[in-house]
Amino acid sequence: MQRNWFLGDLLDQLFDRPGKKRGKDDKRSISELCEALLSAEGEVSGFVLASTILDRYQTLDDTEKLDFFAYLNDQLELDADQLSETARRYAKDRSVDLFKRLSEAAEPRRQELLRRLNQPSGATQELVAMRVNLLRFLKSNPELRRTDIDFVHLLRSWFNRGFLVLKQISWDTPARVLDKIVAYEAVHQINDLDDLRRRLYPPDRRCFAFFHPSMPDEPLIFVEVALTAEIPNAIDVLLSQVREPIEPEQAKVAAFYSISNCQKGLTGISFGNLLIKQVVTELSRELPGLDTFVTLSPIPGMNRWVAGETGHPEHGHAAKAVLAGTASAQDVRAMAARYLLFAKREDGMPLDPVARFHLGNGAELHELHAEADLSQNGRSQSGGAMVNYLYDLKKTERHHEEFAAHATIEASRSVRAASTAALAARPEENTA
Amino acid sequence: MQRNWFLGDLLDQLFDRPGKKRGKDDKRSISELCEALLSAEGEVSGFVLASTILDRYQTLDDTEKLDFFAYLNDQLELDADQLSETARRYAKDRSVDLFKRLSEAAEPRRQELLRRLNQPSGATQELVAMRVNLLRFLKSNPELRRTDIDFVHLLRSWFNRGFLVLKQISWDTPARVLDKIVAYEAVHQINDLDDLRRRLYPPDRRCFAFFHPSMPDEPLIFVEVALTAEIPNAIDVLLSQVREPIEPEQAKVAAFYSISNCQKGLTGISFGNLLIKQVVTELSRELPGLDTFVTLSPIPGMNRWVAGETGHPEHGHAAKAVLAGTASAQDVRAMAARYLLFAKREDGMPLDPVARFHLGNGAELHELHAEADLSQNGRSQSGGAMVNYLYDLKKTERHHEEFAAHATIEASRSVRAASTAALAARPEENTA
Amino acid sequence: MQRNWFLGDLLDQLFDRPGKKRGKDDKRSISELCEALLSAEGEVSGFVLASTILDRYQTLDDTEKLDFFAYLNDQLELDADQLSETARRYAKDRSVDLFKRLSEAAEPRRQELLRRLNQPSGATQELVAMRVNLLRFLKSNPELRRTDIDFVHLLRSWFNRGFLVLKQISWDTPARVLDKIVAYEAVHQINDLDDLRRRLYPPDRRCFAFFHPSMPDEPLIFVEVALTAEIPNAIDVLLSQVREPIEPEQAKVAAFYSISNCQKGLTGISFGNLLIKQVVTELSRELPGLDTFVTLSPIPGMNRWVAGETGHPEHGHAAKAVLAGTASAQDVRAMAARYLLFAKREDGMPLDPVARFHLGNGAELHELHAEADLSQNGRSQSGGAMVNYLYDLKKTERHHEEFAAHATIEASRSVRAASTAALAARPEENTA
Amino acid sequence: MQRNWFLGDLLDQLFDRPGKKRGKDDKRSISELCEALLSAEGEVSGFVLASTILDRYQTLDDTEKLDFFAYLNDQLELDADQLSETARRYAKDRSVDLFKRLSEAAEPRRQELLRRLNQPSGATQELVAMRVNLLRFLKSNPELRRTDIDFVHLLRSWFNRGFLVLKQISWDTPARVLDKIVAYEAVHQINDLDDLRRRLYPPDRRCFAFFHPSMPDEPLIFVEVALTAEIPNAIDVLLSQVREPIEPEQAKVAAFYSISNCQKGLTGISFGNLLIKQVVTELSRELPGLDTFVTLSPIPGMNRWVAGETGHPEHGHAAKAVLAGTASAQDVRAMAARYLLFAKREDGMPLDPVARFHLGNGAELHELHAEADLSQNGRSQSGGAMVNYLYDLKKTERHHEEFAAHATIEASRSVRAASTAALAARPEENTA
Repeated sequence: MQRNWFLGDLLDQLFDRPGKKRGKDDKRSISELCEALLSAEGEVSGFVLASTILDRYQTLDDTEKLDFFAYLNDQLELDADQLSETARRYAKDRSVDLFKRLSEAAEPRRQELLRRLNQPSGATQELVAMRVNLLRFLKSNPELRRTDIDFVHLLRSWFNRGFLVLKQISWDTPARVLDKIVAYEAVHQINDLDDLRRRLYPPDRRCFAFFHPSMPDEPLIFVEVALTAEIPNAIDVLLSQVREPIEPEQAKVAAFYSISNCQKGLTGISFGNLLIKQVVTELSRELPGLDTFVTLSPIPGMNRWVAGETGHPEHGHAAKAVLAGTASAQDVRAMAARYLLFAKREDGMPLDPVARFHLGNGAELHELHAEADLSQNGRSQSGGAMVNYLYDLKKTERHHEEFAAHATIEASRSVRAASTAALAARPEENTA
Repeated sequence: MQRNWFLGDLLDQLFDRPGKKRGKDDKRSISELCEALLSAEGEVSGFVLASTILDRYQTLDDTEKLDFFAYLNDQLELDADQLSETARRYAKDRSVDLFKRLSEAAEPRRQELLRRLNQPSGATQELVAMRVNLLRFLKSNPELRRTDIDFVHLLRSWFNRGFLVLKQISWDTPARVLDKIVAYEAVHQINDLDDLRRRLYPPDRRCFAFFHPSMPDEPLIFVEVALTAEIPNAIDVLLSQVREPIEPEQAKVAAFYSISNCQKGLTGISFGNLLIKQVVTELSRELPGLDTFVTLSPIPGMNRWVAGETGHPEHGHAAKAVLAGTASAQDVRAMAARYLLFAKREDGMPLDPVARFHLGNGAELHELHAEADLSQNGRSQSGGAMVNYLYDLKKTERHHEEFAAHATIEASRSVRAASTAALAARPEENTA
Repeated sequence: MQRNWFLGDLLDQLFDRPGKKRGKDDKRSISELCEALLSAEGEVSGFVLASTILDRYQTLDDTEKLDFFAYLNDQLELDADQLSETARRYAKDRSVDLFKRLSEAAEPRRQELLRRLNQPSGATQELVAMRVNLLRFLKSNPELRRTDIDFVHLLRSWFNRGFLVLKQISWDTPARVLDKIVAYEAVHQINDLDDLRRRLYPPDRRCFAFFHPSMPDEPLIFVEVALTAEIPNAIDVLLSQVREPIEPEQAKVAAFYSISNCQKGLTGISFGNLLIKQVVTELSRELPGLDTFVTLSPIPGMNRWVAGETGHPEHGHAAKAVLAGTASAQDVRAMAARYLLFAKREDGMPLDPVARFHLGNGAELHELHAEADLSQNGRSQSGGAMVNYLYDLKKTERHHEEFAAHATIEASRSVRAASTAALAARPEENTA
Repeated sequence: MQRNWFLGDLLDQLFDRPGKKRGKDDKRSISELCEALLSAEGEVSGFVLASTILDRYQTLDDTEKLDFFAYLNDQLELDADQLSETARRYAKDRSVDLFKRLSEAAEPRRQELLRRLNQPSGATQELVAMRVNLLRFLKSNPELRRTDIDFVHLLRSWFNRGFLVLKQISWDTPARVLDKIVAYEAVHQINDLDDLRRRLYPPDRRCFAFFHPSMPDEPLIFVEVALTAEIPNAIDVLLSQVREPIEPEQAKVAAFYSISNCQKGLTGISFGNLLIKQVVTELSRELPGLDTFVTLSPIPGMNRWVAGETGHPEHGHAAKAVLAGTASAQDVRAMAARYLLFAKREDGMPLDPVARFHLGNGAELHELHAEADLSQNGRSQSGGAMVNYLYDLKKTERHHEEFAAHATIEASRSVRAASTAALAARPEENTA
């Protein structure tokens, strides 16, 4: 019970950065400051130097930021010749001493710089924000990707799953954090706090997020859950302003209807897989009456694929109808099933990114619904269709392995049947 | 209702490992489990696999643990030939693709294994404990130091200063944590909680520790502080059972009289420098009346050096007297001053490890006290002498740089004078 | 620092009422249940009985509630004859035994009932809500005021100032509590959370509330504060959507621009006096640069008084102009000054309720502003005028005593001058 | 940042009393200060006045304290004549106005004084401590019991069950609170924190306490619980230093082996009944495997009663043997059973206070154990016998009512049998 002695003031910690004036008087350039941080000076005054650099960075314009990243990319590089030579020698003599030198030679100096920058309170978040800038520059400066690889390397270590904290987001959460949920929702837009209230306040709604202790105001990823009596077949039912909530104890189904990654600066570092499973575990514990865990997911790539199928001998007509918004519910489901089951990337994996995510987590294709997302976005991306992925924790591991090894897609009989259902005849055939 | 937002349940998080039965039925060997964790299976079931491996590890005897570390050391090695070749190519063509492959080739697989192990709640602490075992094996299996280098690499990243939390330890701290303080005190032994009470309960005593959010019950390093009217000249004065506490507001001096590293598994990852400065900052804020921050430190290597000086033409006699416990206070101070100022390692740094630590932090030698630690340990290591190092935050950076660059030792006039004070004449001279 | 061990889970306490099913099967009437609660059964099963009664009460319609209050009022009365007789005997023989019987006889049984009802979690809040109902009935059932007197007696004891907790309300406060601030704001309306953000989010705004530990979601009273460079002279300046916030450290003035009582059920139990002083103390501690603590207050009764002054020989014309909205700023200030300084109740106290509150707290009339509240409400109640009351903690006690004893109003020279300023000449005089 | 909402800083609240200097310069006597607090001055400056009075009280010696209580008792009395007259009039005319005057006349002014004293932080605890002093004076000044009646009246209201918080006490509890557990343990002495560790640290031990939000460091009452496989038959088994703990999940029995009231100043305000039931509820929730809730209780009055039975025709010899410590286990149990079942007070209630407490709570006499408490105290009070009272929440209400109405004692067959077991023959008969 009373274990929060420790964490209560984790945030009142004493690392507070004294105002915004730190290091203002330091006349050195940002790269000189970085060299200082990497030198002996950095060992004693690293805290102040790191603060100064991070503050200085804030004041840079884009050109200067680009210079800064170029400095990281070029000046704080590893010495490849030395590394090659050390590795060559180590291949013959696996001595500890050589391994140590190899380890050191193998790491670009910018990694140590980033570690030393990560000292003041709030630094982690600023470094994540720094990577957002970096990602923006990558397109026109692809060589900076080398630096990005080092960012990712460190961030993966810092945001190791063992450090993440699952938190319920509710109407008891501080408004400051709720603002972030509004801002980061990526699937079904939230307009403002009063709109968010509908997703958090009713007793049959839940929301969970991962946080990192060093960024306590910043969710990393969150999932919104509806507790329902039946597997939901349309998003409007869940988001309706006029529905009557049910008692959580009476719910049979937990429906994950929105998952949003929050931190652009953590792109490439995946949390979603773990999040869903932890939430399934947590909800099972709280509400033993729950027996079904499904998503209600968009099919974002469907219509793009459908657009390429209009000439298809069998379902070309149905494809046109889907694009035109005139297809029957059965045909929409059929095209969705075909897309999810058979449309593949070159590597044999499903074309649909949401499908890849959930199937890769070991979920299975459970049911398809036409007219499930009638928003403009829903119509244009998938003709209004949505899909339930089912999470059965007893099977996810096996499913995942089949999927990873053979791209095998687990799908329910209903979905398979949809994919082979007879499609509406072509008009000209009708007139024949 | 509104639970303690964010941090309250950080520990109640859902990562709880379900009892101790997890993975008991998995028949695979620990190395097979490790391979599974590194494979695709690890991506989905990593949490369970990591738990299973950590639990399995707990059951290993020493021989099996050694096998496990040998597995890490040999089987999860990097491919030095490939690394050398990739580095060679990268030296010529600094492409992003090659850099990516270089980065991957440069990291032994055991690093990824350790990261994937660090998923369940408590895993960080178990990995730190694993390194305690590893360190024990190093003496007879020095080749394992390669694996240790990777442990250190990861631990330095995970225990990056930006993640540490400074906490005051007081009589309001949970007993579970206080037990650790009793156990980890390394300078002036604490017998039990009732003994600890004397160091925490009085209003003129403070204790601060660094913690890591993933190990909330485990201090990493702590420092004990006495608030006093004068710079203390003997440890007994501070630890006495019968002294009358002063009001904190009346204190002029904060005396750091004990610093203890707690985690053997974090050997080589230094926190002490930052701790003292943060505590100085914190105490200055709480008690603006404080104007002096000093240590009362042991001189652990003094008598070992003195023992080698008995034949010294000038202070050989004083050396003998110090060892015999018959030296005058002035001679003890003189020998201490000579030791601290002039006894050097080959690299020019002070022979005394405590001196290296504080001078390296930018402190200065402030005052020497004979008959300051009359415990058996105090007498045998330094003839009862102790030393105050002074922390003047305005000067620490400059002092540190001088010390790092030129091994320059800042010392007060009083200490310098002690080093040149006339020593007691030799007895034979007396009799002459 | 880490003192929240205790209070962290105060709300996770085990008194949770098990769903809403408690006592549903108990067939007794609510008055029978009350008798049971007051009997021996209540000693052992009081917790369950109290829950049952409180739940039953929730299901009552207004007629039944009135019956219930009539039951409290008539059946759970004291025995006045016995009380009179006991008091008579006690007057002659001040024995402990008689005093004990007197104490018991002097307390209506409904007080004990209310105490015994206050056992389950949330009961305090439900009893406060019960009084809201009771207050509603008082108008048509004035005899119930006897029961209300007992409610007040207990609530004054339970909400004793020593139990109240001052909390800052900020954007870090749970949305559930912020909803209450929106709902309870009584002076300058808040539309929704996004509107509230303007009063909480900027660094130069503060809000403080009193809470009771048993009603942690329910503010009792709150005050909104603007940190400003100058004493504010109009409400729009403070509530503007486009203003530029200042750094709190640069603020000289803390302006209390809204105070709202939240709990209708606590009518007659005053918290406001203490609140302002505590907030002054708290802000002084946080921001030593603050040197002036004032309100920016409405003058709610002004125009009602002005309407009675239209025939006044001297300021009748100005009164008409104020009511017509055509008065000059000087005349508005003059009428406001005359109202606040000279308009009295029969008991000699100021007619204006806000003036009575602040002057009763020991504040002084500091400055008057015309065109300070141009909302419809502001115009209609005070011709747009507002007033600053100044809190100088060194003087509040003396002021209060003078005010309480002699109804003396402390007012600045400026306010006094306003009251005697020449008023605009009458039009007919102009034409003369 | 987001501080622990609401409760985190309940204790950092702004009611802090400024050092110990408050009101030092106020030259008025404590009774003058009390009059001021009761006057208009008290309305505005009540906080400061209350602090001054409470501090002044601390400085009083016993004679002065007695004077202070005499002042409360005599000067702050009610006017019995006026009360009698008002009650007489009210008996005839039940007007609200008369009721109001009656309510006011019925309350001695000291009650209002105590309420007004209860404003500064810590005041509640100081008033509880004040009552400890008062209780001490009662013996030689029985007339002060009138004042004590008013203390009790207010304390019952302030410590209303709805305000109490159940907290688990564990090794994660702050040492400051654990010190109190050591000090307040009243049944089986605890020597120090290391001794307490044996009762809190093992996984099969629990401790729960009631707290009041205004006294967060001060338990009001606590109960120690052992989780066991069998109903325990001796205290040493539970307190042994060498026992092997069991997994809590394997426990069948929760044995309450010590209940201690902590606050002498709350004498007469009972919490024990509720505590046990709440703990039963809480433990049932945490550990569904528990099916038996019993005490292991002392029989404190047994030997005192036995001493009066030595001449009894049937069990006089057994009584002598019990007192001499030579009785067989069967005879000890027999005498214990007879004592608990048949020894009564004048009012028909059991002579044994612990029996009255548990039977009054609706527990039943379950089993008797000879040689169960072999401490000196155990031997001298009950010949080493102890008793299990069984709490079956389904029956406690019915049992309680039977007990309250008819003094009916529920006892198991085994206890009944013990009471009628044949006693050892008298020695002289043996020799016959």
